[in-house]
Amino acid sequence: MRRIRLILEYDGTNYSGWQRQENAVSVQQRLEESLRRLTGESLLTVTGASRTDAGVHALGQNAHFDTDSRIPGDKFSFALNTMLPDDIRVVSSEDADPSFHARFSAAGKEYRYLFYSARHASALYRNLCWHVIYPLDADKMSREAQSIIGTHDFASFAASGSVVKDTQRTIDSVSVTQRPPFIELRVHGNGFLYNMVRILAGTLAGVGSGKLPEGAIQRALEHNDRLMLGVTAPPQGLTLMRVDYSEGICLPPT
Amino acid sequence: MRRIRLILEYDGTNYSGWQRQENAVSVQQRLEESLRRLTGESLLTVTGASRTDAGVHALGQNAHFDTDSRIPGDKFSFALNTMLPDDIRVVSSEDADPSFHARFSAAGKEYRYLFYSARHASALYRNLCWHVIYPLDADKMSREAQSIIGTHDFASFAASGSVVKDTQRTIDSVSVTQRPPFIELRVHGNGFLYNMVRILAGTLAGVGSGKLPEGAIQRALEHNDRLMLGVTAPPQGLTLMRVDYSEGICLPPT
Repeated sequence: MRRIRLILEYDGTNYSGWQRQENAVSVQQRLEESLRRLTGESLLTVTGASRTDAGVHALGQNAHFDTDSRIPGDKFSFALNTMLPDDIRVVSSEDADPSFHARFSAAGKEYRYLFYSARHASALYRNLCWHVIYPLDADKMSREAQSIIGTHDFASFAASGSVVKDTQRTIDSVSVTQRPPFIELRVHGNGFLYNMVRILAGTLAGVGSGKLPEGAIQRALEHNDRLMLGVTAPPQGLTLMRVDYSEGICLPPT
Repeated sequence: MRRIRLILEYDGTNYSGWQRQENAVSVQQRLEESLRRLTGESLLTVTGASRTDAGVHALGQNAHFDTDSRIPGDKFSFALNTMLPDDIRVVSSEDADPSFHARFSAAGKEYRYLFYSARHASALYRNLCWHVIYPLDADKMSREAQSIIGTHDFASFAASGSVVKDTQRTIDSVSVTQRPPFIELRVHGNGFLYNMVRILAGTLAGVGSGKLPEGAIQRALEHNDRLMLGVTAPPQGLTLMRVDYSEGICLPPT
Protein backbone atom coordinates (compact mmCIF):
# COMPACT_ATOMS: atom_id res chain seq x y z
CA MET A 1 0.00 0.00 0.00
CA ARG A 2 1.37 3.42 -0.95
CA ARG A 3 0.27 6.89 0.14
CA ILE A 4 -0.07 9.56 -2.54
CA ARG A 5 -0.29 13.29 -1.88
CA LEU A 6 -2.10 15.71 -4.19
CA ILE A 7 -2.15 19.47 -4.53
CA LEU A 8 -5.46 20.61 -5.98
CA GLU A 9 -7.03 23.70 -7.45
CA TYR A 10 -10.79 24.07 -7.81
CA ASP A 11 -13.56 26.51 -8.54
CA GLY A 12 -16.07 25.85 -5.76
CA THR A 13 -19.00 27.52 -7.57
CA ASN A 14 -20.62 24.33 -8.78
CA TYR A 15 -19.92 22.14 -5.75
CA SER A 16 -21.53 21.56 -2.39
CA GLY A 17 -18.04 21.97 -0.93
CA TRP A 18 -15.08 19.67 -0.44
CA GLN A 19 -16.80 16.99 1.58
CA ARG A 20 -18.79 14.11 0.16
CA GLN A 21 -22.51 14.29 1.01
CA GLU A 22 -25.87 12.92 -0.08
CA ASN A 23 -27.82 14.60 -2.88
CA ALA A 24 -25.10 17.05 -3.90
CA VAL A 25 -21.87 16.92 -5.85
CA SER A 26 -18.69 17.58 -3.88
CA VAL A 27 -15.08 17.98 -4.95
CA GLN A 28 -14.09 14.95 -2.89
CA GLN A 29 -16.69 12.82 -4.66
CA ARG A 30 -15.53 13.86 -8.13
CA LEU A 31 -11.94 13.11 -7.16
CA GLU A 32 -12.78 9.73 -5.65
CA GLU A 33 -14.83 8.75 -8.71
CA SER A 34 -11.87 9.51 -10.97
CA LEU A 35 -9.37 7.73 -8.72
CA ARG A 36 -11.58 4.64 -8.41
CA ARG A 37 -11.89 4.48 -12.18
CA LEU A 38 -8.15 5.01 -12.60
CA THR A 39 -7.01 2.42 -10.05
CA GLY A 40 -9.92 -0.02 -10.19
CA GLU A 41 -10.07 0.24 -6.38
CA SER A 42 -13.75 0.67 -5.63
CA LEU A 43 -13.28 1.61 -1.97
CA LEU A 44 -10.58 4.24 -2.45
CA THR A 45 -11.19 7.39 -0.39
CA VAL A 46 -9.44 10.77 -0.38
CA THR A 47 -8.69 12.88 2.70
CA GLY A 48 -8.45 16.65 2.27
CA ALA A 49 -6.55 19.17 4.38
CA SER A 50 -9.48 21.57 4.57
CA ARG A 51 -13.21 20.88 4.31
CA THR A 52 -14.01 23.98 2.25
CA ASP A 53 -17.68 25.01 2.10
CA ALA A 54 -19.98 25.25 -0.90
CA GLY A 55 -18.80 28.07 -3.17
CA VAL A 56 -15.36 28.33 -1.54
CA HIS A 57 -12.38 27.94 -3.90
CA ALA A 58 -8.92 26.45 -3.58
CA LEU A 59 -5.65 27.22 -5.31
CA GLY A 60 -3.65 25.02 -2.96
CA GLN A 61 -5.85 22.38 -1.35
CA ASN A 62 -3.91 19.28 -0.27
CA ALA A 63 -5.17 15.71 -0.07
CA HIS A 64 -3.92 12.17 0.28
CA PHE A 65 -5.10 8.66 -0.54
CA ASP A 66 -3.80 5.11 -0.24
CA THR A 67 -3.55 2.77 -3.19
CA ASP A 68 -2.01 -0.47 -4.43
CA SER A 69 -1.81 0.97 -7.95
CA ARG A 70 1.58 0.87 -9.65
CA ILE A 71 1.08 4.22 -11.40
CA PRO A 72 4.15 6.41 -10.66
CA GLY A 73 3.33 9.06 -8.04
CA ASP A 74 3.93 12.04 -10.30
CA LYS A 75 1.74 10.56 -13.07
CA PHE A 76 -1.51 10.69 -11.12
CA SER A 77 -1.85 14.40 -11.82
CA PHE A 78 -1.75 13.94 -15.60
CA ALA A 79 -4.12 10.98 -15.53
CA LEU A 80 -6.59 12.67 -13.18
CA ASN A 81 -6.62 15.89 -15.21
CA THR A 82 -7.87 13.95 -18.25
CA MET A 83 -10.78 12.57 -16.20
CA LEU A 84 -11.80 15.44 -13.92
CA PRO A 85 -14.16 18.28 -14.91
CA ASP A 86 -12.26 21.44 -15.84
CA ASP A 87 -13.21 23.25 -12.63
CA ILE A 88 -11.00 20.81 -10.68
CA ARG A 89 -7.28 20.51 -11.56
CA VAL A 90 -4.54 18.48 -9.95
CA VAL A 91 -1.51 20.75 -9.70
CA SER A 92 0.87 18.00 -8.60
CA SER A 93 0.99 14.46 -7.24
CA GLU A 94 3.77 12.58 -5.51
CA ASP A 95 4.54 9.60 -3.31
CA ALA A 96 4.35 10.58 0.34
CA ASP A 97 5.55 9.05 3.55
CA PRO A 98 2.90 6.73 5.06
CA SER A 99 2.90 8.99 8.12
CA PHE A 100 1.85 12.00 6.03
CA HIS A 101 -1.75 13.03 6.66
CA ALA A 102 -3.18 15.90 4.57
CA ARG A 103 -5.24 17.18 7.49
CA PHE A 104 -3.39 16.24 10.66
CA SER A 105 0.13 16.92 9.35
CA ALA A 106 -0.83 20.44 8.26
CA ALA A 107 1.26 23.02 10.13
CA GLY A 108 -0.31 26.12 8.59
CA LYS A 109 -2.78 27.44 6.04
CA GLU A 110 -3.21 30.60 4.05
CA TYR A 111 -6.56 31.96 2.94
CA ARG A 112 -7.50 34.88 0.68
CA TYR A 113 -10.76 36.78 0.87
CA LEU A 114 -11.68 39.14 -1.99
CA PHE A 115 -14.03 42.09 -1.51
CA TYR A 116 -15.43 43.88 -4.56
CA SER A 117 -16.02 47.47 -3.56
CA ALA A 118 -18.17 49.22 -6.16
CA ARG A 119 -21.68 50.57 -6.71
CA HIS A 120 -22.56 47.71 -9.07
CA ALA A 121 -21.81 44.03 -8.66
CA SER A 122 -19.19 42.42 -10.87
CA ALA A 123 -20.41 40.32 -13.78
CA LEU A 124 -16.98 38.90 -14.62
CA TYR A 125 -15.70 38.22 -11.11
CA ARG A 126 -19.05 37.52 -9.42
CA ASN A 127 -18.04 34.02 -8.28
CA LEU A 128 -14.69 35.18 -6.89
CA CYS A 129 -15.58 38.03 -4.58
CA TRP A 130 -18.10 39.59 -2.23
CA HIS A 131 -19.76 42.68 -3.62
CA VAL A 132 -19.88 45.32 -0.88
CA ILE A 133 -22.00 48.21 -2.08
CA TYR A 134 -21.07 50.71 0.65
CA PRO A 135 -17.64 52.41 0.51
CA LEU A 136 -14.85 50.58 2.34
CA ASP A 137 -11.86 52.22 4.01
CA ALA A 138 -9.05 49.76 3.30
CA ASP A 139 -6.62 51.48 5.69
CA LYS A 140 -9.09 51.11 8.54
CA MET A 141 -9.61 47.45 7.61
CA SER A 142 -5.87 46.89 7.56
CA ARG A 143 -5.42 48.45 11.01
CA GLU A 144 -8.32 46.48 12.45
CA ALA A 145 -7.05 43.20 10.97
CA GLN A 146 -3.80 43.43 12.94
CA SER A 147 -5.71 42.64 16.16
CA ILE A 148 -6.12 39.08 15.05
CA ILE A 149 -2.38 38.42 15.10
CA GLY A 150 -1.17 36.17 17.91
CA THR A 151 -2.38 33.17 19.88
CA HIS A 152 -5.96 33.67 21.04
CA ASP A 153 -9.05 31.76 22.04
CA PHE A 154 -11.06 32.34 18.85
CA ALA A 155 -14.37 30.98 20.21
CA SER A 156 -16.04 34.27 19.24
CA PHE A 157 -14.96 33.61 15.64
CA ALA A 158 -16.49 30.13 15.50
CA ALA A 159 -19.72 29.49 13.62
CA SER A 160 -22.60 28.91 16.02
CA GLY A 161 -23.24 25.22 16.53
CA SER A 162 -19.56 24.43 16.06
CA VAL A 163 -18.55 21.44 18.16
CA VAL A 164 -14.78 21.97 18.23
CA LYS A 165 -13.47 21.85 21.81
CA ASP A 166 -10.13 23.55 21.47
CA THR A 167 -10.73 27.00 20.02
CA GLN A 168 -7.20 28.33 20.49
CA ARG A 169 -5.37 29.16 17.26
CA THR A 170 -2.34 31.18 16.26
CA ILE A 171 -2.49 33.71 13.44
CA ASP A 172 0.96 34.84 12.36
CA SER A 173 0.26 37.16 9.46
CA VAL A 174 -2.58 39.16 8.01
CA SER A 175 -2.72 41.83 5.31
CA VAL A 176 -5.36 43.96 3.62
CA THR A 177 -4.39 45.28 0.19
CA GLN A 178 -6.42 47.59 -2.02
CA ARG A 179 -6.38 46.99 -5.76
CA PRO A 180 -9.53 48.89 -6.90
CA PRO A 181 -12.20 47.76 -7.22
CA PHE A 182 -10.83 44.80 -5.22
CA ILE A 183 -9.71 44.69 -1.61
CA GLU A 184 -7.73 41.57 -0.79
CA LEU A 185 -7.45 40.03 2.67
CA ARG A 186 -4.72 37.44 3.23
CA VAL A 187 -4.42 35.57 6.48
CA HIS A 188 -2.04 32.83 7.56
CA GLY A 189 -2.25 30.76 10.72
CA ASN A 190 -1.69 27.33 12.20
CA GLY A 191 -5.37 26.51 11.85
CA PHE A 192 -8.81 28.05 11.47
CA LEU A 193 -12.18 27.38 13.09
CA TYR A 194 -15.21 26.75 10.92
CA ASN A 195 -16.21 30.06 9.22
CA MET A 196 -13.40 31.91 11.02
CA VAL A 197 -12.03 33.66 7.92
CA ARG A 198 -15.51 34.55 6.70
CA ILE A 199 -16.39 36.06 10.10
CA LEU A 200 -13.10 37.98 10.00
CA ALA A 201 -13.97 39.23 6.48
CA GLY A 202 -17.47 40.24 7.53
CA THR A 203 -16.06 42.08 10.54
CA LEU A 204 -13.49 43.94 8.43
CA ALA A 205 -16.24 44.98 6.01
CA GLY A 206 -18.22 46.22 9.02
CA VAL A 207 -15.33 48.26 10.36
CA GLY A 208 -14.29 49.46 6.88
CA SER A 209 -17.79 50.76 6.20
CA GLY A 210 -18.21 52.35 9.64
CA LYS A 211 -21.01 50.00 10.71
CA LEU A 212 -18.80 48.48 13.40
CA PRO A 213 -16.45 50.45 15.67
CA GLU A 214 -12.70 50.10 15.34
CA GLY A 215 -11.35 47.75 17.99
CA ALA A 216 -14.25 45.32 17.53
CA ILE A 217 -11.93 42.34 17.06
CA GLN A 218 -9.90 43.04 20.18
CA ARG A 219 -13.03 43.48 22.29
CA ALA A 220 -14.67 40.34 20.87
CA LEU A 221 -11.55 38.31 21.69
CA GLU A 222 -11.46 39.72 25.21
CA HIS A 223 -15.14 39.05 25.86
CA ASN A 224 -15.44 35.93 23.75
CA ASP A 225 -18.51 37.47 22.15
CA ARG A 226 -19.57 36.58 18.59
CA LEU A 227 -22.13 39.42 18.68
CA MET A 228 -19.39 42.05 18.76
CA LEU A 229 -18.25 40.86 15.32
CA GLY A 230 -19.71 41.33 11.84
CA VAL A 231 -21.70 39.06 9.56
CA THR A 232 -20.32 35.84 8.13
CA ALA A 233 -19.13 36.97 4.70
CA PRO A 234 -20.42 34.91 1.75
CA PRO A 235 -18.39 31.90 0.61
CA GLN A 236 -17.46 32.89 -2.95
CA GLY A 237 -14.90 35.49 -1.79
CA LEU A 238 -12.85 32.83 0.00
CA THR A 239 -9.96 30.85 -1.50
CA LEU A 240 -7.68 28.37 0.27
CA MET A 241 -4.28 29.47 -1.05
CA ARG A 242 -1.96 26.86 0.40
CA VAL A 243 -1.36 24.36 3.16
CA ASP A 244 2.05 24.16 4.81
CA TYR A 245 3.69 20.99 6.06
CA SER A 246 6.84 21.02 8.06
CA GLU A 247 8.51 18.62 5.61
CA GLY A 248 8.11 21.17 2.84
CA ILE A 249 6.72 20.27 -0.56
CA CYS A 250 6.49 21.99 -3.90
CA LEU A 251 3.94 24.77 -3.72
CA PRO A 252 1.46 25.62 -6.43
CA PRO A 253 1.64 28.96 -8.27
CA THR A 254 -0.50 31.61 -6.59
CA MET B 1 -37.56 60.11 -28.51
CA ARG B 2 -34.47 60.07 -26.28
CA ARG B 3 -31.15 58.32 -26.71
CA ILE B 4 -29.70 56.48 -23.72
CA ARG B 5 -26.10 55.33 -23.41
CA LEU B 6 -25.07 52.33 -21.32
CA ILE B 7 -21.74 51.06 -20.02
CA LEU B 8 -21.86 47.30 -19.59
CA GLU B 9 -19.87 44.54 -17.99
CA TYR B 10 -20.41 40.89 -18.87
CA ASP B 11 -19.00 37.43 -18.53
CA GLY B 12 -19.13 36.07 -22.08
CA THR B 13 -18.81 32.41 -21.04
CA ASN B 14 -22.49 31.55 -21.35
CA TYR B 15 -23.29 33.66 -24.41
CA SER B 16 -22.99 33.27 -28.15
CA GLY B 17 -21.39 36.72 -28.16
CA TRP B 18 -22.75 40.25 -28.18
CA GLN B 19 -24.83 40.02 -31.31
CA ARG B 20 -28.36 38.68 -31.48
CA GLN B 21 -28.65 35.46 -33.48
CA GLU B 22 -30.96 32.51 -34.05
CA ASN B 23 -30.82 29.48 -31.75
CA ALA B 24 -28.36 30.96 -29.25
CA VAL B 25 -28.51 33.43 -26.40
CA SER B 26 -26.58 36.67 -26.89
CA VAL B 27 -25.87 39.56 -24.55
CA GLN B 28 -27.71 41.94 -26.87
CA GLN B 29 -30.81 39.73 -26.76
CA ARG B 30 -30.83 39.54 -22.94
CA LEU B 31 -30.45 43.31 -22.76
CA GLU B 32 -33.19 43.96 -25.31
CA GLU B 33 -35.56 41.57 -23.54
CA SER B 34 -35.06 43.45 -20.27
CA LEU B 35 -35.41 46.87 -21.88
CA ARG B 36 -38.56 45.87 -23.77
CA ARG B 37 -40.08 44.62 -20.53
CA LEU B 38 -39.00 47.77 -18.70
CA THR B 39 -40.26 50.27 -21.29
CA GLY B 40 -43.11 48.30 -22.84
CA GLU B 41 -41.59 49.10 -26.24
CA SER B 42 -41.65 45.80 -28.08
CA LEU B 43 -39.43 46.94 -30.95
CA LEU B 44 -36.67 48.49 -28.89
CA THR B 45 -33.19 47.54 -30.11
CA VAL B 46 -29.74 48.12 -28.63
CA THR B 47 -26.58 48.98 -30.56
CA GLY B 48 -23.23 47.95 -29.09
CA ALA B 49 -19.80 49.50 -29.64
CA SER B 50 -18.13 46.15 -30.21
CA ARG B 51 -19.58 42.88 -31.43
CA THR B 52 -17.66 40.65 -29.07
CA ASP B 53 -17.48 36.93 -29.94
CA ALA B 54 -18.77 33.96 -27.98
CA GLY B 55 -16.75 33.57 -24.79
CA VAL B 56 -15.25 37.09 -24.98
CA HIS B 57 -15.82 39.30 -21.92
CA ALA B 58 -16.38 43.00 -21.39
CA LEU B 59 -15.63 45.31 -18.48
CA GLY B 60 -16.41 48.43 -20.50
CA GLN B 61 -18.72 47.65 -23.42
CA ASN B 62 -20.79 50.65 -24.52
CA ALA B 63 -24.24 50.61 -26.08
CA HIS B 64 -27.12 52.92 -26.91
CA PHE B 65 -30.86 52.68 -27.52
CA ASP B 66 -33.73 55.03 -28.27
CA THR B 67 -36.86 55.17 -26.15
CA ASP B 68 -39.94 57.23 -25.36
CA SER B 69 -39.82 56.04 -21.75
CA ARG B 70 -39.81 58.72 -19.05
CA ILE B 71 -37.45 56.79 -16.78
CA PRO B 72 -34.57 59.14 -15.81
CA GLY B 73 -31.39 58.30 -17.72
CA ASP B 74 -29.34 57.35 -14.70
CA LYS B 75 -32.08 55.04 -13.35
CA PHE B 76 -31.94 52.56 -16.22
CA SER B 77 -28.85 50.93 -14.71
CA PHE B 78 -30.58 50.15 -11.41
CA ALA B 79 -33.74 48.90 -13.09
CA LEU B 80 -31.88 46.74 -15.60
CA ASN B 81 -29.65 45.20 -12.94
CA THR B 82 -32.72 43.83 -11.15
CA MET B 83 -33.85 42.13 -14.38
CA LEU B 84 -30.64 40.94 -16.04
CA PRO B 85 -28.85 37.67 -15.20
CA ASP B 86 -25.92 38.21 -12.86
CA ASP B 87 -23.33 37.65 -15.60
CA ILE B 88 -24.44 40.92 -17.23
CA ARG B 89 -24.27 44.17 -15.24
CA VAL B 90 -25.02 47.74 -16.26
CA VAL B 91 -22.25 49.88 -14.83
CA SER B 92 -23.91 53.19 -15.72
CA SER B 93 -26.64 54.73 -17.83
CA GLU B 94 -27.20 58.31 -18.92
CA ASP B 95 -29.02 60.48 -21.42
CA ALA B 96 -26.89 60.98 -24.52
CA ASP B 97 -26.94 63.41 -27.39
CA PRO B 98 -29.08 62.06 -30.27
CA SER B 99 -25.94 62.22 -32.43
CA PHE B 100 -24.13 59.79 -30.12
CA HIS B 101 -23.66 56.34 -31.66
CA ALA B 102 -22.06 53.63 -29.52
CA ARG B 103 -20.28 52.13 -32.52
CA PHE B 104 -19.67 54.95 -34.97
CA SER B 105 -18.79 57.62 -32.40
CA ALA B 106 -16.13 55.38 -30.82
CA ALA B 107 -12.72 57.01 -31.06
CA GLY B 108 -10.72 54.23 -29.42
CA LYS B 109 -10.89 50.89 -27.64
CA GLU B 110 -8.78 49.02 -25.17
CA TYR B 111 -8.59 45.23 -24.97
CA ARG B 112 -6.90 42.90 -22.51
CA TYR B 113 -5.74 39.39 -23.30
CA LEU B 114 -4.75 37.07 -20.42
CA PHE B 115 -2.37 34.15 -20.90
CA TYR B 116 -2.05 31.52 -18.17
CA SER B 117 1.46 30.16 -18.32
CA ALA B 118 1.73 26.97 -16.27
CA ARG B 119 2.04 23.20 -16.64
CA HIS B 120 -1.54 22.65 -15.59
CA ALA B 121 -4.64 24.55 -16.66
CA SER B 122 -6.35 26.86 -14.18
CA ALA B 123 -9.54 25.60 -12.54
CA LEU B 124 -10.44 28.93 -10.97
CA TYR B 125 -9.58 31.24 -13.87
CA ARG B 126 -10.30 28.84 -16.74
CA ASN B 127 -12.92 31.13 -18.34
CA LEU B 128 -10.69 34.21 -18.13
CA CYS B 129 -7.45 33.15 -19.75
CA TRP B 130 -5.72 31.00 -22.34
CA HIS B 131 -3.71 28.17 -20.83
CA VAL B 132 -0.38 27.99 -22.65
CA ILE B 133 1.44 24.84 -21.55
CA TYR B 134 4.88 25.66 -23.02
CA PRO B 135 7.06 28.25 -21.26
CA LEU B 136 6.58 31.85 -22.42
CA ASP B 137 9.27 34.54 -22.45
CA ALA B 138 7.33 37.67 -21.47
CA ASP B 139 10.22 40.00 -22.33
CA LYS B 140 10.38 38.61 -25.84
CA MET B 141 6.60 38.99 -26.15
CA SER B 142 6.82 42.58 -24.95
CA ARG B 143 9.54 43.46 -27.50
CA GLU B 144 7.64 41.75 -30.32
CA ALA B 145 4.40 43.52 -29.41
CA GLN B 146 5.94 46.96 -29.97
CA SER B 147 5.95 46.30 -33.76
CA ILE B 148 2.20 46.70 -33.83
CA ILE B 149 2.37 50.36 -32.75
CA GLY B 150 1.52 52.89 -35.43
CA THR B 151 -0.77 53.20 -38.42
CA HIS B 152 -0.63 50.08 -40.59
CA ASP B 153 -2.64 48.09 -43.06
CA PHE B 154 -3.61 45.24 -40.75
CA ALA B 155 -5.07 42.99 -43.49
CA SER B 156 -2.73 40.20 -42.33
CA PHE B 157 -4.37 40.41 -38.90
CA ALA B 158 -7.91 40.04 -40.21
CA ALA B 159 -9.80 36.77 -39.83
CA SER B 160 -10.08 34.94 -43.15
CA GLY B 161 -13.42 35.59 -44.81
CA SER B 162 -13.54 39.09 -43.31
CA VAL B 163 -15.34 41.49 -45.63
CA VAL B 164 -14.08 44.79 -44.23
CA LYS B 165 -12.71 46.99 -47.02
CA ASP B 166 -10.58 49.44 -45.10
CA THR B 167 -8.04 47.45 -43.09
CA GLN B 168 -5.97 50.42 -41.93
CA ARG B 169 -5.94 50.98 -38.19
CA THR B 170 -3.83 52.89 -35.68
CA ILE B 171 -2.53 51.22 -32.53
CA ASP B 172 -1.16 53.76 -30.07
CA SER B 173 -0.19 51.65 -27.10
CA VAL B 174 0.58 48.05 -26.25
CA SER B 175 2.04 46.40 -23.17
CA VAL B 176 2.88 42.89 -22.00
CA THR B 177 3.12 42.46 -18.23
CA GLN B 178 4.04 39.32 -16.34
CA ARG B 179 2.20 38.54 -13.10
CA PRO B 180 2.92 34.81 -12.68
CA PRO B 181 1.21 32.59 -13.62
CA PHE B 182 -0.51 35.25 -15.74
CA ILE B 183 0.86 37.28 -18.62
CA GLU B 184 -1.32 40.26 -19.50
CA LEU B 185 -1.47 41.90 -22.91
CA ARG B 186 -3.10 45.32 -23.16
CA VAL B 187 -3.63 47.04 -26.48
CA HIS B 188 -5.29 50.33 -27.32
CA GLY B 189 -6.13 51.63 -30.78
CA ASN B 190 -8.64 53.57 -32.82
CA GLY B 191 -10.24 50.35 -34.01
CA PHE B 192 -9.66 46.63 -34.46
CA LEU B 193 -10.40 44.19 -37.27
CA TYR B 194 -12.34 41.02 -36.54
CA ASN B 195 -10.10 38.65 -34.49
CA MET B 196 -7.22 41.14 -34.63
CA VAL B 197 -6.41 41.04 -30.90
CA ARG B 198 -6.72 37.26 -30.79
CA ILE B 199 -4.33 36.91 -33.75
CA LEU B 200 -1.94 39.30 -32.00
CA ALA B 201 -2.20 37.20 -28.82
CA GLY B 202 -1.62 33.96 -30.72
CA THR B 203 1.40 35.50 -32.45
CA LEU B 204 2.89 36.73 -29.17
CA ALA B 205 2.45 33.25 -27.67
CA GLY B 206 4.21 31.86 -30.75
CA VAL B 207 7.15 34.26 -30.41
CA GLY B 208 7.24 33.93 -26.61
CA SER B 209 7.51 30.14 -26.87
CA GLY B 210 10.05 30.20 -29.68
CA LYS B 211 7.72 28.61 -32.23
CA LEU B 212 7.69 31.81 -34.29
CA PRO B 213 10.76 33.97 -35.02
CA GLU B 214 11.08 37.43 -33.48
CA GLY B 215 10.13 40.09 -36.01
CA ALA B 216 7.14 38.05 -37.25
CA ILE B 217 4.73 40.94 -36.80
CA GLN B 218 6.86 43.42 -38.73
CA ARG B 219 7.35 40.98 -41.61
CA ALA B 220 3.66 40.05 -41.73
CA LEU B 221 2.71 43.73 -41.89
CA GLU B 222 5.26 44.34 -44.67
CA HIS B 223 4.13 41.33 -46.71
CA ASN B 224 0.45 41.44 -45.74
CA ASP B 225 0.71 37.74 -44.97
CA ARG B 226 -1.55 36.07 -42.39
CA LEU B 227 0.57 32.91 -42.60
CA MET B 228 3.55 34.65 -41.02
CA LEU B 229 1.50 35.12 -37.84
CA GLY B 230 0.42 32.72 -35.10
CA VAL B 231 -2.84 30.99 -34.33
CA THR B 232 -6.01 32.85 -33.41
CA ALA B 233 -5.91 32.68 -29.61
CA PRO B 234 -9.09 31.33 -27.95
CA PRO B 235 -11.84 33.81 -27.01
CA GLN B 236 -11.97 33.42 -23.23
CA GLY B 237 -8.67 35.28 -22.70
CA LEU B 238 -10.09 38.43 -24.30
CA THR B 239 -11.84 41.28 -22.46
CA LEU B 240 -13.04 44.60 -23.91
CA MET B 241 -11.81 47.02 -21.25
CA ARG B 242 -13.21 50.31 -22.45
CA VAL B 243 -14.44 52.37 -25.37
CA ASP B 244 -13.36 55.99 -25.73
CA TYR B 245 -15.50 58.77 -27.11
CA SER B 246 -14.16 62.20 -27.81
CA GLU B 247 -16.86 63.77 -25.66
CA GLY B 248 -15.62 61.90 -22.62
CA ILE B 249 -17.91 60.00 -20.31
CA CYS B 250 -17.56 58.39 -16.93
CA LEU B 251 -15.44 55.27 -17.23
CA PRO B 252 -16.08 52.02 -15.40
CA PRO B 253 -13.61 50.75 -12.83
CA THR B 254 -11.06 48.40 -14.35
